[in-house]
Amino acid sequence: MECNTPTDITFSFSGLAVRGGQTGPHGDGFGLAFYEENAARVFLDPRASAVSPLASFLREHSIKTELAVAHIRKKTRGGVSLANTHPFMRELWGRAWVFAHNGTVRGIKRKRLGHFNPIGDTDSEHAFCWLLEGLRARFRDYPKSARALRTTVADLGAEIAKFGTFNFLLGDGRALYARCDTKLCYIVRQAPFGRATLADADVSIDFAAVTTPRDRVAVVATAPLTKDETWTLGVPGTLWVFREGSLVATLPSPNGKRNARPRRARTS
Amino acid sequence: MECNTPTDITFSFSGLAVRGGQTGPHGDGFGLAFYEENAARVFLDPRASAVSPLASFLREHSIKTELAVAHIRKKTRGGVSLANTHPFMRELWGRAWVFAHNGTVRGIKRKRLGHFNPIGDTDSEHAFCWLLEGLRARFRDYPKSARALRTTVADLGAEIAKFGTFNFLLGDGRALYARCDTKLCYIVRQAPFGRATLADADVSIDFAAVTTPRDRVAVVATAPLTKDETWTLGVPGTLWVFREGSLVATLPSPNGKRNARPRRARTS
Repeated sequence: MECNTPTDITFSFSGLAVRGGQTGPHGDGFGLAFYEENAARVFLDPRASAVSPLASFLREHSIKTELAVAHIRKKTRGGVSLANTHPFMRELWGRAWVFAHNGTVRGIKRKRLGHFNPIGDTDSEHAFCWLLEGLRARFRDYPKSARALRTTVADLGAEIAKFGTFNFLLGDGRALYARCDTKLCYIVRQAPFGRATLADADVSIDFAAVTTPRDRVAVVATAPLTKDETWTLGVPGTLWVFREGSLVATLPSPNGKRNARPRRARTS
Repeated sequence: MECNTPTDITFSFSGLAVRGGQTGPHGDGFGLAFYEENAARVFLDPRASAVSPLASFLREHSIKTELAVAHIRKKTRGGVSLANTHPFMRELWGRAWVFAHNGTVRGIKRKRLGHFNPIGDTDSEHAFCWLLEGLRARFRDYPKSARALRTTVADLGAEIAKFGTFNFLLGDGRALYARCDTKLCYIVRQAPFGRATLADADVSIDFAAVTTPRDRVAVVATAPLTKDETWTLGVPGTLWVFREGSLVATLPSPNGKRNARPRRARTS
C-alpha cells in the first residue's frame, strides 16, 4: 500500500492474512512493514497469518502509514524460520529499504555480495542483498533523479529475473517499486470513494466514510484483494512505481531468462 | 535477557514497561528485540510503553527467546519518532546486531561513517553505526575468537565513551555485551529457583514453577527490576559479556573522557 496521506492497512491486511493458511496455502510465516518517513518497523512471525496472535493484533489495531509492505509466505527455498520470513529490511543511504518476493530465483547465490549479506538462507534475501549492492555501486547517495533510481531498479530486477521468477515489492520510504514477473495487480482508490468487499472474507468497507476527498491510496497484490472493484493486471516484465498514491511510471524490466542455467522446477 | 534455553521475557518486561511513562519518566517510545538464532525481530513504538497497545500485546503473549534487548526511552538528543526509537538493528557478517543506549554522547557525529548510516538523528544510532564500522574494519567475518571480538567491543565502547555517557546493551545472537558507564546491574537466575516480586508493579512470580533445573537466565538492567533478589552492580568503565545465561567475561572499557570537547550538560 502506498498513499498520499497516512492510511491504515487493516482492511487489506484482513483479506491477505486469511490467505496465509486458510483461504490460501501461504502458511509459512508472514510479515508487515510500516514506514514512518525514512524508517520502517517490520512485524514478523514465522507462524501462519491466519492463526498468528500478532496478525490478529495488526488486524485490530490501526497503524497509519503512507507506505506498507506485507507478505505471506509459501516456502520454496529455505525452511520456516524468523530469518527466512519476508519482508526483509536493510539500511542504505540512511533510510530503510524493505523487500518482499514472490517466486524462486534458483542459482542467484552465485551472485557475489559484499556490503549486504543474508541472515537466512532464502534465494529471496540473497536477491534483495544483491539488488542493494547494485544500487550502492551505482549511486553514492540517494539519487536526486527519481528516474535514474527507478531505471536502475528495473534493470537490476531484470538481471535477477534471469534466474527464475522475480515478482517483488520494494519500498524505500518515498516510493513503492512493484515488479511483475508473472502475476501482479493494483488498484488506486480515490474520490469518489465507494464500497468494497474482500474476496477472502465476508468483510465490506465504505471507503467514503473513512477518507477525505483528497486521499489517494494505491494497493498492489499478487491477486485482487476485493471482489467488487476493478484491479489492473500487470504485464510480465514490467516495473510499476507508485508515489503519493499514484502510478507514476511503468518501466520495462524484461523477463530475459536466456542466460540462466536450465531449471528443473519453478514455483510462483 | 540472555539465557541458555528459550525463555519468555514477559515478567521482566512488565516491570520495565511501567517505567515508560508511569513509575519512570522514560515515556518517549520503547522497543523490544527478540533473537531467533542469527535473526532478530524488533517491536518498536514511539509511544510510551506504559500506554502502548503493542507493549500490552508483548506483556500478554509469550515469545520465547535466548536473547532479548529492551529499551524505554527518555529523549535527550533527537525528537520522538520511529527512526529515533531504540533498539536499533543492522546486519553485519550475515547476522542481526541489536543495540540500545542509555546516556548521551555529544559530538559523536564528528566520527565519520561509511557502510552504516543512521536513519534517525540520535547520537545513539550514530554511535552504534560507528561501533559496527569499527568491528567491520577489524574483522572480515564473524571472528572465530570470542575473546578478540569482546576486546574490540570494549575498546570501541571506551572510544565512544570519550564523548559522554555510554551505557549500552549490544546483542549479536550469540552473546550479550553490556557496558557500564555510570549505572548497570545484573542477576543470574538458576536452580534452585525462588520467587521474585517486581519493583515497579505488584506482580510476583515463582520461577521454580516455570523453569527446569538446568535453565540459566541472565537479566541486565539500568536499575534492579525486582525488590527481593540480589542484583550485582556494575563498575563504571567495564564491559560484561553474557553467554548461555552466564557472565563469561568482565573487561575494562575505561571511561577516559580526556579527549572530549567540554560538555555543557549530560544526562543519563
